[in-house]
Amino acid sequence: MRTTLCDTLGIDLPIIGFTPSEHVAAAISRAGGLGVLGCVRFNDADELDKVLGWMDANTGGRPYGVDVVMPAKVPDEVKGVDPATLIPAEHREFVDRTLAQLGVPELPEGQGRDGVLGWLHSVARSHVEVALEHPIALIANALGSPPADVIAQAHDAGVPVAALAGKAEHAARHVERGVDFVVAQGHEAGGHTGEIASMVLLPEIVDAVGDRAPVLAAGGIGSGRQAAAALALGAQGVWTGSIWLATREYLETMPESEPMQQALVAATSADTVRTRIYTGKPARLLKTRWTEAWSQPDAPEPLPMPLQNLLVAPAHNRIHASSDPSVVSMPVGQIVGRMNEVRPVADVVADLASGFTDAVTRLTEISDA
Amino acid sequence: MRTTLCDTLGIDLPIIGFTPSEHVAAAISRAGGLGVLGCVRFNDADELDKVLGWMDANTGGRPYGVDVVMPAKVPDEVKGVDPATLIPAEHREFVDRTLAQLGVPELPEGQGRDGVLGWLHSVARSHVEVALEHPIALIANALGSPPADVIAQAHDAGVPVAALAGKAEHAARHVERGVDFVVAQGHEAGGHTGEIASMVLLPEIVDAVGDRAPVLAAGGIGSGRQAAAALALGAQGVWTGSIWLATREYLETMPESEPMQQALVAATSADTVRTRIYTGKPARLLKTRWTEAWSQPDAPEPLPMPLQNLLVAPAHNRIHASSDPSVVSMPVGQIVGRMNEVRPVADVVADLASGFTDAVTRLTEISDA
Repeated sequence: MRTTLCDTLGIDLPIIGFTPSEHVAAAISRAGGLGVLGCVRFNDADELDKVLGWMDANTGGRPYGVDVVMPAKVPDEVKGVDPATLIPAEHREFVDRTLAQLGVPELPEGQGRDGVLGWLHSVARSHVEVALEHPIALIANALGSPPADVIAQAHDAGVPVAALAGKAEHAARHVERGVDFVVAQGHEAGGHTGEIASMVLLPEIVDAVGDRAPVLAAGGIGSGRQAAAALALGAQGVWTGSIWLATREYLETMPESEPMQQALVAATSADTVRTRIYTGKPARLLKTRWTEAWSQPDAPEPLPMPLQNLLVAPAHNRIHASSDPSVVSMPVGQIVGRMNEVRPVADVVADLASGFTDAVTRLTEISDA
Repeated sequence: MRTTLCDTLGIDLPIIGFTPSEHVAAAISRAGGLGVLGCVRFNDADELDKVLGWMDANTGGRPYGVDVVMPAKVPDEVKGVDPATLIPAEHREFVDRTLAQLGVPELPEGQGRDGVLGWLHSVARSHVEVALEHPIALIANALGSPPADVIAQAHDAGVPVAALAGKAEHAARHVERGVDFVVAQGHEAGGHTGEIASMVLLPEIVDAVGDRAPVLAAGGIGSGRQAAAALALGAQGVWTGSIWLATREYLETMPESEPMQQALVAATSADTVRTRIYTGKPARLLKTRWTEAWSQPDAPEPLPMPLQNLLVAPAHNRIHASSDPSVVSMPVGQIVGRMNEVRPVADVVADLASGFTDAVTRLTEISDA
């Protein structure tokens, strides 16, 4: 299972694993893939710096990457205005009322932390600055092309840039702007996602960018069969996210995530919903009592990015602390239906690789018959 | 490109092609696949009988199948009640008003035909009766398991039965009821479709039915790369529909369909919508001014099956006669974005087969590297 992407990135397997957990990211890199650390959870760039230092010491010298969230259009935010003041009272009241109805307790005095600021452009830029001081192999942007100066900054440091695309025209635009890898994010993916499913989207994007950029397949990839399908469709590698949420290493970073893992392990592929309630843009989440509350007639329309996440982040902290699997708020793709146990990262990687070989062997027999 | 399905059905290529056109179906069978004629357009079983007689004479002795529409739950219909009386005036008024707004002329006096009755259970049963008098190789049901006595009737005649499934649990139930082939219909497919995309759905269904039934992949399949992906995911063959709408042979059956083909050829993969306006159940259609009108605030909720189709069928006749590509009402999958010219059926089949071989060759190189 070796593509030119492996040579470009210095990895053994064309498996890119996005995760907010440094323990998972390091384990993916050690297993021969490329762990990509999601930075949105870091409000403070110094905190990210410390964690990347840990990555440098724990990836066994294997490459790793980082993922920031930079909307192509910079929202009018934090220009002397506290963004929190832009959130309507109706929305705050709905959140408070809903949490009470769902039986989610308030946080004990002094606990809890600020809303997640990583969605703010200024914070994402500070992530890039810090990351480039580490030996990273990739900067990915989870929302379209990064700004031109960020691409230039990465290239000056010799670091390639990846960007997500849910349409072929977006992929072509990324490449014109200098993006080095396109992540084709199918409808079935977790997190921000468009309407076109991987089976259709992936070859469209591969053909749209031609040999100007390798394409990574995201959305629905959790097994070697799916990796083989993605590569049959023209991808040079797979971009996986959801499957790493149900790994043992995830708990090393976030030990309080056991109820979340229980909820994921119990879910079927039908138990996700694509909604704007997480960030203001359509994103696929685990379907729980929390997401269902937002589809009731009394629920307000979600706010635009970045306000929606500022609104719900404190609620997510309360939900997280409540340890109730039935109210979990977590981006995850339809592949959640196959995440049926919590496993070590190395086992997941090994299964992807061996399942790929099995699928190709089976296909070759069919082709030769 | 040969699987056990080929031996079971007596075909050269594991490509099943669903189409309402007998000219297309016969051409698919002659090219080595299995043409499956959709029967829903036949209000009169004698008319179907005549067309199947034509198929018998024009498939060069190659096998073909038929597709009927039998909801698992029989609606309370036509029991002494004219179903037309069950359609609310508000719905009829909306349709009339919308057609006027869209500039769709009324049909000339004496033209036009009845609503499509093939959605009615009684009519679908008459299709089965007639079809079994011909040397058909397959009966497919486009809506879940057929009734037990229909499965028994087909099996008594030595004809295997296929049924569509959008969830693994439905697929398992089909097989328990005696269905011989499961068509895994992904979210990206045209016509009736669920929420789970092919990349995730297909291996789930393959694993759910195990070796009890071969699985055909439907949804997003229009090229050999996609066929290779489907077979990598465990399918024994592909079930294709949309791609046959843009063939020359289609016009031999329905010469008035040129504006529809123009609309399909111009559409991108983003130009579809999943809506209940065609039959009352969620189905993916080409997005046009007609479908958009139904998503406006003044549009009524679609009616349940079979009433919704009885409501819109006369409108579809007017739309069809108007020759305006911008108002076409046509089920089609996201693969429409790759249907960029009207081609002979044999060319489409040949490209599927050669594209499959190319994709497998590429995968084998990756696997060996």
